[in-house]
Amino acid sequence: MKMIHLAESRAFEEKGLKRFLLHDSPYFRILNFNLQAGQIFPVHHHPAEGQVSIHVIEGTGQFLGENGAAIPAVAGDILVSDISEPHGVKADTDMRILVTIAPPF
Amino acid sequence: MKMIHLAESRAFEEKGLKRFLLHDSPYFRILNFNLQAGQIFPVHHHPAEGQVSIHVIEGTGQFLGENGAAIPAVAGDILVSDISEPHGVKADTDMRILVTIAPPF
Repeated sequence: MKMIHLAESRAFEEKGLKRFLLHDSPYFRILNFNLQAGQIFPVHHHPAEGQVSIHVIEGTGQFLGENGAAIPAVAGDILVSDISEPHGVKADTDMRILVTIAPPF
Repeated sequence: MKMIHLAESRAFEEKGLKRFLLHDSPYFRILNFNLQAGQIFPVHHHPAEGQVSIHVIEGTGQFLGENGAAIPAVAGDILVSDISEPHGVKADTDMRILVTIAPPF
């Protein structure tokens, strides 16, 4: 068993999004990204099997997809995407997201 | 891509914990359990490979383990456990947890 306290990784950076690797195993990888208002996690995808969940734990912004797609995202919203499908995030306010990747690639 | 809004599954039940299946795929299963103050998700385990994360999204309580182990749990805390390892939850206040199982069994 392992405990993670999200309160301990509540840090932001002027120069770009702040990344914390919280857990890594053969089954899933859990990361916390913190974005200041206006920062962007650019749309990306990987040629790998699996899915990713992006859970907004604080703040508001948008989930990004291909062709400029943007879906409003507030705390308590979760986007589930194939790893191979383009996905990204834009922060409108300071924003924290919890990302779970299964399986890690 | 799929959107989940945790605000839409914020329901509790007098007679026992309330369960919502939010996502199921070959990669992970995501569930939301809502416990009223005093309700218990009994300690259990399954003879399966994989891990489970239990993320407290609201309220306070305790993560439970074998031999009566109890670890304080507040919103923003995540327990990661092997599926085969005994784990459970007790709610001290009304409490919501997000459970991710990878891979589903």
